[in-house]
Amino acid sequence: MTTGYVDGTIKAFLDKLATSSPEPGGGSVAAMTGALGAGLVSMVASLTVGKEKYAGVQAEIQSLLAASEQVRADLQVLVQRDTEVYGAVAEAMKLPRDTEQQKAERDATMQVALKEAAKVPLTIAEQSLKVAELSLTGAEIGNVNAVSDAGVAVLLADAAAQSAALNVKINVGWIEDQEFNRSTWQRVEEILAATAGLREQVMTLTYEKLG
Amino acid sequence: MTTGYVDGTIKAFLDKLATSSPEPGGGSVAAMTGALGAGLVSMVASLTVGKEKYAGVQAEIQSLLAASEQVRADLQVLVQRDTEVYGAVAEAMKLPRDTEQQKAERDATMQVALKEAAKVPLTIAEQSLKVAELSLTGAEIGNVNAVSDAGVAVLLADAAAQSAALNVKINVGWIEDQEFNRSTWQRVEEILAATAGLREQVMTLTYEKLG
Repeated sequence: MTTGYVDGTIKAFLDKLATSSPEPGGGSVAAMTGALGAGLVSMVASLTVGKEKYAGVQAEIQSLLAASEQVRADLQVLVQRDTEVYGAVAEAMKLPRDTEQQKAERDATMQVALKEAAKVPLTIAEQSLKVAELSLTGAEIGNVNAVSDAGVAVLLADAAAQSAALNVKINVGWIEDQEFNRSTWQRVEEILAATAGLREQVMTLTYEKLG
Repeated sequence: MTTGYVDGTIKAFLDKLATSSPEPGGGSVAAMTGALGAGLVSMVASLTVGKEKYAGVQAEIQSLLAASEQVRADLQVLVQRDTEVYGAVAEAMKLPRDTEQQKAERDATMQVALKEAAKVPLTIAEQSLKVAELSLTGAEIGNVNAVSDAGVAVLLADAAAQSAALNVKINVGWIEDQEFNRSTWQRVEEILAATAGLREQVMTLTYEKLG
């Protein structure tokens, strides 16, 4: 069913991405970008664990590491999940439409598949916002020698959220349920405002600490 | 000598990134982010090649594909190269410093290694700027059904350039050659201004085309 991109090589993923193959696409790349950001937050936490200089924040650092590893695991699953929901839309498009009943059934199946295909990048955006929040904690209390990695993490989190937003946008363009579209896009805009604010905050802090 | 990250699995890269291991670090992640962006530009081009609707731009699209595949190959090499120059700095730090002569030799070796370690993320930033430029071409003349992928590409290119800049910054902090630092950072600022401008331009165009 799934092709398990994260279990394959980086080169294989990039090589297939570069072709006209329908997957992997921008949604999977958004999830992977978020996962790279989460991995960097985990690195910052890992470089702080057990360090005497950071004895006062060990409990918070352990929580940070647990949270970033959970988000990373979730985003790694979403890399694959995005290809599956995209596949379901493509399958629905192939349904017969010779009779009025077939057309109605195809439309209904399409609408369900499109909503799922919009929800996945929305979830990727939500998880990316978590990465941005965790990056701030990493930059604030993590090992100062790794502060640039917290900076890279927030840049990737913001880019991942914005990338996921584009992939929500594509799908809502085809969804007839206007209330679903309105509430979905409202949440996207909240997430983008939050990640942009966190990016600004973490980058300022990072450059300050780099001197 | 090298561990060949791009020939390993995505999961292995992310798992090691999350640890306190000195590599891979933010520089390698910047290169990989740029490579993901280049791969998306190639995808946009690949989805335009041979399409009758885009008959008038086939020569430009072939050039775009060749250029994005070249930049992707270069960035894939830079994922590894960043770990090597980082390793050279770490090796230099281990040199003996018992006598004045040893200290002087260690300092000289360190300074050479640090300059190399600054040049690699600068090159990653240069290549990321190319990805941003190619994203614009993709968004302008590429298959409109893939315009969101051109949008994701420019977001990743800009994040990659900014991430590489942080990794230049870390190294110039330790480099004594102020003329090298000044000219290097000036070029970084030019690149960041250019990628930020391209991000704005491509994102505006992408949202316009998505309707």
